[in-house]
Amino acid sequence: TVSAGESVSNFLYSSTNMRLKLPITCFILQIILIILFGVLVQYDEDTDAKKHHHGNHSKTKPDIENDFYYRYPSFQDVHVMIFVGFGFLMTFLQRYGFSSVGFNFLIAAFSLQWATLMQGFFHGLHEGKIHIGVESMINADFCTGSVLISFGAVLGKTSPVQLLFMAVFEVTLFAVNEYILLTHLGTRDAGGSMTIHTFGAYFGLMVTRILYRPNLDKSKHKNCSVYHSDLFAMIGTLYLWMFWPSFNSAITEHGDPQHRTAMNTYYSLAACTLSTYAMSSLTAHDGKLDMVHIQNAALAGGVAAGTAGEMMLTPFGSMIVGFLAGIISVLGYKYLTPILENKLKIQDTCGIHNLHGMPGVLGAIVGAVTASLASKEVYGEGLEKVFPEVAGGHRTASYQGGVQAISLAVTLGMALFGGLIVGFILKLPIFGAPRDTTCFEDSLYWEVRKPQSHFSYAEKKIGTSFSITVLFYKQFLWKTNISD
Amino acid sequence: TVSAGESVSNFLYSSTNMRLKLPITCFILQIILIILFGVLVQYDEDTDAKKHHHGNHSKTKPDIENDFYYRYPSFQDVHVMIFVGFGFLMTFLQRYGFSSVGFNFLIAAFSLQWATLMQGFFHGLHEGKIHIGVESMINADFCTGSVLISFGAVLGKTSPVQLLFMAVFEVTLFAVNEYILLTHLGTRDAGGSMTIHTFGAYFGLMVTRILYRPNLDKSKHKNCSVYHSDLFAMIGTLYLWMFWPSFNSAITEHGDPQHRTAMNTYYSLAACTLSTYAMSSLTAHDGKLDMVHIQNAALAGGVAAGTAGEMMLTPFGSMIVGFLAGIISVLGYKYLTPILENKLKIQDTCGIHNLHGMPGVLGAIVGAVTASLASKEVYGEGLEKVFPEVAGGHRTASYQGGVQAISLAVTLGMALFGGLIVGFILKLPIFGAPRDTTCFEDSLYWEVRKPQSHFSYAEKKIGTSFSITVLFYKQFLWKTNISD
Amino acid sequence: TVSAGESVSNFLYSSTNMRLKLPITCFILQIILIILFGVLVQYDEDTDAKKHHHGNHSKTKPDIENDFYYRYPSFQDVHVMIFVGFGFLMTFLQRYGFSSVGFNFLIAAFSLQWATLMQGFFHGLHEGKIHIGVESMINADFCTGSVLISFGAVLGKTSPVQLLFMAVFEVTLFAVNEYILLTHLGTRDAGGSMTIHTFGAYFGLMVTRILYRPNLDKSKHKNCSVYHSDLFAMIGTLYLWMFWPSFNSAITEHGDPQHRTAMNTYYSLAACTLSTYAMSSLTAHDGKLDMVHIQNAALAGGVAAGTAGEMMLTPFGSMIVGFLAGIISVLGYKYLTPILENKLKIQDTCGIHNLHGMPGVLGAIVGAVTASLASKEVYGEGLEKVFPEVAGGHRTASYQGGVQAISLAVTLGMALFGGLIVGFILKLPIFGAPRDTTCFEDSLYWEVRKPQSHFSYAEKKIGTSFSITVLFYKQFLWKTNISD
Repeated sequence: TVSAGESVSNFLYSSTNMRLKLPITCFILQIILIILFGVLVQYDEDTDAKKHHHGNHSKTKPDIENDFYYRYPSFQDVHVMIFVGFGFLMTFLQRYGFSSVGFNFLIAAFSLQWATLMQGFFHGLHEGKIHIGVESMINADFCTGSVLISFGAVLGKTSPVQLLFMAVFEVTLFAVNEYILLTHLGTRDAGGSMTIHTFGAYFGLMVTRILYRPNLDKSKHKNCSVYHSDLFAMIGTLYLWMFWPSFNSAITEHGDPQHRTAMNTYYSLAACTLSTYAMSSLTAHDGKLDMVHIQNAALAGGVAAGTAGEMMLTPFGSMIVGFLAGIISVLGYKYLTPILENKLKIQDTCGIHNLHGMPGVLGAIVGAVTASLASKEVYGEGLEKVFPEVAGGHRTASYQGGVQAISLAVTLGMALFGGLIVGFILKLPIFGAPRDTTCFEDSLYWEVRKPQSHFSYAEKKIGTSFSITVLFYKQFLWKTNISD
Repeated sequence: TVSAGESVSNFLYSSTNMRLKLPITCFILQIILIILFGVLVQYDEDTDAKKHHHGNHSKTKPDIENDFYYRYPSFQDVHVMIFVGFGFLMTFLQRYGFSSVGFNFLIAAFSLQWATLMQGFFHGLHEGKIHIGVESMINADFCTGSVLISFGAVLGKTSPVQLLFMAVFEVTLFAVNEYILLTHLGTRDAGGSMTIHTFGAYFGLMVTRILYRPNLDKSKHKNCSVYHSDLFAMIGTLYLWMFWPSFNSAITEHGDPQHRTAMNTYYSLAACTLSTYAMSSLTAHDGKLDMVHIQNAALAGGVAAGTAGEMMLTPFGSMIVGFLAGIISVLGYKYLTPILENKLKIQDTCGIHNLHGMPGVLGAIVGAVTASLASKEVYGEGLEKVFPEVAGGHRTASYQGGVQAISLAVTLGMALFGGLIVGFILKLPIFGAPRDTTCFEDSLYWEVRKPQSHFSYAEKKIGTSFSITVLFYKQFLWKTNISD
Repeated sequence: TVSAGESVSNFLYSSTNMRLKLPITCFILQIILIILFGVLVQYDEDTDAKKHHHGNHSKTKPDIENDFYYRYPSFQDVHVMIFVGFGFLMTFLQRYGFSSVGFNFLIAAFSLQWATLMQGFFHGLHEGKIHIGVESMINADFCTGSVLISFGAVLGKTSPVQLLFMAVFEVTLFAVNEYILLTHLGTRDAGGSMTIHTFGAYFGLMVTRILYRPNLDKSKHKNCSVYHSDLFAMIGTLYLWMFWPSFNSAITEHGDPQHRTAMNTYYSLAACTLSTYAMSSLTAHDGKLDMVHIQNAALAGGVAAGTAGEMMLTPFGSMIVGFLAGIISVLGYKYLTPILENKLKIQDTCGIHNLHGMPGVLGAIVGAVTASLASKEVYGEGLEKVFPEVAGGHRTASYQGGVQAISLAVTLGMALFGGLIVGFILKLPIFGAPRDTTCFEDSLYWEVRKPQSHFSYAEKKIGTSFSITVLFYKQFLWKTNISD
């Protein structure tokens, strides 16, 4: 018999049974969200029936200029990247598909609500209220993306409750960092090379460093892909790749900046894809392409165009950036990830350092350089939209470039420090983290059906064992034969 | 030898061979559609080359105000929900993936054409002609969605010919019900909590009740999912979830109503997702999440925001609605579905009562309450767009609320009565319905390739039986070992 | 030991090892692209910060009239068709999923860059510079689509280096053909029935004819689908089907032509789907539907509406076209493909002749007839947008119809002649083409993980052989039992 003390102790320190932990966490978080939304959140001018139609009809802007029509298609593309892109990208693990897609879904649904509050709180309240519309929805999805990047580092080694708590803290810190950069420093970072990718990556890497599992090789045999799981992951890859132009351009100014950002990203990604294939083949001893590289490194061009994409980077510049990002990323997967794991004890399941970390830093540097070269000669009247501080004469272009570089340092500092604190919080033995032997395994948190019910049905029809045995041989031989 | 009489009898009463039935049905339906389109259908003002450019250029509205640019992105999102969303959501069945996606495809392609005619006929002919454009395309997709909801109830137990006939009748009744509600009663139901979800669900439930199969447990072993089929189903779930904001806002008025509806739905779904995860874990004895709940109940927030989404529900209100919808839906899957099946003989394959039925009713009630609280103070000049009858002084808000409530009753009545009639029609033994033992089975209607051709190739390479036997053991153990 | 000469000879003539070939090809192509972009390419008026804001603000067009807002949603739909649509459509092969999606990805990423240059070069340089924006991005994706169609014919039988070289030549010829048609002849072909589908199909068919492999039956056992691969392929099919209205309307004139084209294509596809199901069932001896037909022939309606879609074809006319396209396409798969293969030695892996070839020719003919019937009575002032030459009085409608017909002949000639030349180039034994026995096989070019690591883990837990043997029987019986 189990004593009350033991029972409590089991509950607190070891059980991965989510029956109480997960419902309580979800319910409390959601109820807090609902209350805070009730107190703080209001429709903005473009979503409110009254504000949108203020008295005099002649002053009302035409419906087509509602921000919805400028941004909603981009929002939906970003939304697909968050839920299908990130979700399916992580299904490459053979026995972790439910958790990859499912936990991605859960923490994204939480984060976008919490991000609405945190970003609204920091980005300027309107008479104590947070005003929301399609732009805040995109920003909330962006912040969610950062959390999902960090999720990639700890994938397979954390319980859903841990992930929800990580999201609570990371969203908050994301909003603080974003506030410092965009509002205080006047940094330009429309596609989030710094605020989203660099922040999410180094935060996640620090968390996974603190959560280091020396005996993770006990579940190493599950930490790999199978044929079909790699195809599912390609669904995620392709949606991220295709919609990255929408991601980077989603919250730029209307008109030419939005148009230009999408196009720069498009060419950066295309160039990145070719360098990824080249490097993947070049670094394999037999020239065979590695799905891990294709699934991830081909996206680095989008990350690296996140800051400078809205600037006059030119397609030429974008392609160079993408080209380099692909090379760096594949080299990272091939040579740096093993070093990080063995020497620095950073177990980075999805290799986010290669997809978001280094390309994010590259993107920040490219952004700083491009900003420092901005001039009225190149941007004309359009300078106002991209560098309002420079256009207004409050800053020189090179000062703006310096601000961009400082912003990268601030972001790295915030991410690493934040990850350190949050890592230790998540280490508390109350969240139901999996044991070393049960990492990368859906059946710990999910009802995984086994096709047992068929057996009873099939049993009735057992035929001659001889023919069966022969067929088994055939089936087996076919399976092992495929790759001859 | 088979006599001519027997042959006819077999053809009429028992054969599931579709060689004549399906082609004849498809051809006749399509030819009727083509003829009716030729006689009745015309381009509307925004799609016709001539009408769009009437003589005086200065009077012509600018191209950007063509309804295409307001609605086409939403239409494409809805289109994805209909074909990929509904189609893949139903692929959870292990041996019914071809039929789920394929019959979904077939009856959707038919229904959208037939719906164009029926809705055009009822919603006001223009001098005897039906005028069509992007709005009618969205409406046709909406009506199709209703048919696909009903398909979910009978999934696995019907032949494609039965489904086509169901669609013929259901689309017609849908158009009648929609006509009564929107045109006669002046009901507001932009996202179709009543017209689409409640109607489709209760119609389908009544049909499956009439088609009750007492011996369905003979194919029970196929009526379940396997690992990969659940991942395919998640593709459907996520597309439905992501694009539901577009669904609910697709045919609202331009400007703030469209913007607001999308945002309300976004928050309703997010809150619903958290309550779904909480309830799924709470109702499992070992706290494990159930894929069925995640795949379905997380969508209930979109259904429940279908009527009130365009109103000033506020994000706060939307989140409460979504939160409740998720709870109701999981409870339905857990406790109500078995009761419906055992006591009321309603075999609801996909659990549409939990995803569309109850949340649809909830949405209708929320809509009625929200409508009854509408006021000029809250909506300002925007009242005209959401409640034209109230803004015009023809109705009070509470009267509008009453109309909304009556509309729910009308919809339930139409759906149940319609389903009763159509169920009996579909019971006629001429449509090639599967036998009890061959339900949930693709190979009845589809050419399912077996990898036999490999055997002959593999046979040539049979090795030692010893190593094979050992490997079989290993393979088997790995498979059974996964969930330890 | 291998001599230097032998080593070189192996490198040149036989090795399928891509370690040097693929990286060198990718790097050289990408570096050439970057240099040419640096020299030749500039932002157009809608993407450039300066050009978009020329001095006087009052003259600047409003942001909402930036071409981005007219075309970007369509562009993204087209983009999804190119990468997910074409990519997953070809995953039907059981062991070629990585290559289908992965090579599709590679050659698309290359082709869209190269197409930007080639199309820009031919379609009119602006003072020696190529101006690019969203319309050029769509055109580049279109040209890429043509290459991917040709890829479908040689799928499984070519190395990635061969494919890249094919793309280099095909893109160039595509641009020449498009230039002759659109610029010189004044042909209308917004959705590319001729320029994209007919060209891509007959080019690819000629290439595969030249690359004829008499002993391809050695890998015949891999040239088929399995259950899950057919479901993956349906993802491709559905995205192509859903977004085809966006494809055909993506570069039509703003306003009613774009709106009308999308709608015509929508109804053409719907009608095509019903005739495809009918024909698939009718041509199978037991009435069972064939996934190959559903995956491909249901799309023929989009191809066939590519030229006439923007014209006043009416929904009625569109449905007739789609209806016929579906019938032709299924008949092609059933009866023509075996003839092409056995008599004409055209090994067409994906059956592009049935999906793109014949429906493309049908679309061109329908376009010629519809154009020849154009009149001011029907089009009003809108004639200017669809047939500027006819509206301007420079041509009669019947002359325009003749031009359309001639354009088809030109396209066929260019495609067949180009395919002939390129086929012989690709036959050079330096590109690492697979041997006859290793066609349709991912593991030749991809690292394909085998779940061997599990075995060592599982071995530790071997239980009693008796229960295992029984379970094997059960498992086997269940598998073979499914389709009874």
